[in-house]
Amino acid sequence: MTTPRSESLHWVVAPDSFKGSASASEVAHAIAQGIRNALPRATVTELPFADGGEGTLDALLQTGSMTEHTVATSDALGRPITARLGIASDSSLAIIECAEANGLPGVSDAPLRPLDATSYGVGALVRAALDAGCSELILCLGGSATTDGGAGMLSALGAKFLDRDGAELAPGGGALSSLDRIDLNGLDPRVFSTRWRFACDVTNPLVGERGAAAVFGPQKGANPEQVETLDRGLSVFSRLLEAHSTRDQALDREPGLGAAGGLALGPFALFNASLEPGSELVAETLGLQERVENADVVITGEGRFDEQSLHGKVVDAIRRYTPAETPVIVFAGSITLDDAALRRHGITAAFATARGPAQLADLQETVLHDLQALGGDVARLLNAGAAFRSP
Amino acid sequence: MTTPRSESLHWVVAPDSFKGSASASEVAHAIAQGIRNALPRATVTELPFADGGEGTLDALLQTGSMTEHTVATSDALGRPITARLGIASDSSLAIIECAEANGLPGVSDAPLRPLDATSYGVGALVRAALDAGCSELILCLGGSATTDGGAGMLSALGAKFLDRDGAELAPGGGALSSLDRIDLNGLDPRVFSTRWRFACDVTNPLVGERGAAAVFGPQKGANPEQVETLDRGLSVFSRLLEAHSTRDQALDREPGLGAAGGLALGPFALFNASLEPGSELVAETLGLQERVENADVVITGEGRFDEQSLHGKVVDAIRRYTPAETPVIVFAGSITLDDAALRRHGITAAFATARGPAQLADLQETVLHDLQALGGDVARLLNAGAAFRSP
Repeated sequence: MTTPRSESLHWVVAPDSFKGSASASEVAHAIAQGIRNALPRATVTELPFADGGEGTLDALLQTGSMTEHTVATSDALGRPITARLGIASDSSLAIIECAEANGLPGVSDAPLRPLDATSYGVGALVRAALDAGCSELILCLGGSATTDGGAGMLSALGAKFLDRDGAELAPGGGALSSLDRIDLNGLDPRVFSTRWRFACDVTNPLVGERGAAAVFGPQKGANPEQVETLDRGLSVFSRLLEAHSTRDQALDREPGLGAAGGLALGPFALFNASLEPGSELVAETLGLQERVENADVVITGEGRFDEQSLHGKVVDAIRRYTPAETPVIVFAGSITLDDAALRRHGITAAFATARGPAQLADLQETVLHDLQALGGDVARLLNAGAAFRSP
Repeated sequence: MTTPRSESLHWVVAPDSFKGSASASEVAHAIAQGIRNALPRATVTELPFADGGEGTLDALLQTGSMTEHTVATSDALGRPITARLGIASDSSLAIIECAEANGLPGVSDAPLRPLDATSYGVGALVRAALDAGCSELILCLGGSATTDGGAGMLSALGAKFLDRDGAELAPGGGALSSLDRIDLNGLDPRVFSTRWRFACDVTNPLVGERGAAAVFGPQKGANPEQVETLDRGLSVFSRLLEAHSTRDQALDREPGLGAAGGLALGPFALFNASLEPGSELVAETLGLQERVENADVVITGEGRFDEQSLHGKVVDAIRRYTPAETPVIVFAGSITLDDAALRRHGITAAFATARGPAQLADLQETVLHDLQALGGDVARLLNAGAAFRSP
């Protein structure tokens, strides 16, 4: 084994965004600049990372292997908007951050209407991806305003949801309890030959007290009565869908189908969709493993480095994909983990950005400056260590 | 040159106190524990440091080469107290933190009496040191409540201060403007054969607008009229002292004699006392140079790491005495210096203790815990660097 020279080390900087302060690519760039200033001969790869939640599309677009497409669609209240998706340069793969079309932020200007909110706009994004020739879809859940079991999305792709009089249901999860029949004859046939992969980090089932309506309904504006209506609708929908399903398991208890108001339900039942941990899907898409395999040092980070970070989040993924002997250093806006927890998870060191007593708002304002300083400090320290011999 | 093994490196931890939160020895111990936990085979020397200000006596007593002596004396208001001094094990040297006997904290229970406050108690400490056989005195200034030009201290050592009627003056700087004659016949003869060294980091002269009364009088409770009285008294005192002085320069303009209400005036004029930067005096007393000469890594720190820190303070001294090729790392409660300033002064890296947004009081509460964590992080990082080859 050759020993790399410390000044010409290969550093990979693969942070999450610092939510509320800086995007993953801004964070990566600031840290990288600090390292480059300290060690001009170092090779520094900026690899903005994400865990499948908010910011994932941005992080993946940064890699340069994806192109941003803008599509006319509608928001969760059915109002016309344009939304983005990412399509791989060879058109094989599309990344859809569902919240672009069904998200809470997009409807924050209006009163919440939990019974009416629809995922129809996500279906329009899917159609755009299929039109572009994509045979694989990665759909990031999270941040949705909808609890319609993805009925809206399927409508946009040609499915029909009918009541006992044969009339089409109104959009939104509120109408689903009147669902009597699903007509799949009009479905865009390409949906069956497409690989559907949902980035999903919750294990909530579709219905019941841990279900989509009960757990996530209130933050979408549902009162207890509306939660009950939505839960009943999802239950009716899943029962009727089971007749068409390629799966033999009960859909209402499947872990994860409660994410994003049940958005993955239809594709899971009908198109063999998979639910996968977001950070792993992103890691695969970014080619993370190959990128960190030859790194000498990896720096990652996120706004808040806590117990959650070590379970399915960015820092966890970075540590799992990075060879055990390669140091992994975490930069964060706040660190609530103790030394023992860091050791257990193989984190070499963790540094917070604060330079003294400060409010959150102050730290957010100076975060990029502070990250650059930390990058320089850590680079110089590691370089100083290179004067000594490993045991 | 042999390359030391990273796990068995010799770390010297030489911080200042974190004022208001932790003593230098507590800080040194916390950091050292962090390093020892991370690298059990490392040699870690705890070397609490000080700059000649508050806490210097404590830091020097920690070295084990000094013994704490308790002496009956009086405070700045003349009330009986016991105060501490440090005497070297071979009795050659005494360390006197003057504020033990003339300090503001000691009289904080009573209204300030700037005209009456006296340094008499410091003289009693000096006498105790001489009685113990010490032939060298290090007197740390700072934090004094007095503006008596050290007349009180000289009185305690046998000098007499007389007005034009031949009556002895009342204690305190307020009476000095009535000074007509100084009678040195009764002075303890040992004062002339003793080496007097004052730890002094200000350049203020004795009198005038940058003098002891004008600049430091107000914080000792003097109103403008009292400042004028005190300034006049110091002027009279220094003029009369010049007749006895072994120096040929004018005493009232000598830089530094304005420190501690003019405490060093008499010894400077009569006993050939020196004024020296506090951190250098402490460094010499601690044997700092020999201790850091063979260190592989030096960690220092202080509560607030700012521009001042790099001018005559602990961090500055540590960097100057440490060989240039040895990394010096700073831990601080707050860091206001930018990257460029750190580089200019040869600081390898600087880390703040905060683990996220926090008020000063919160940081003070967790400072030792946070310093221990930082110690571990830095130790592991340096150890990780040892896997790479120096350029």
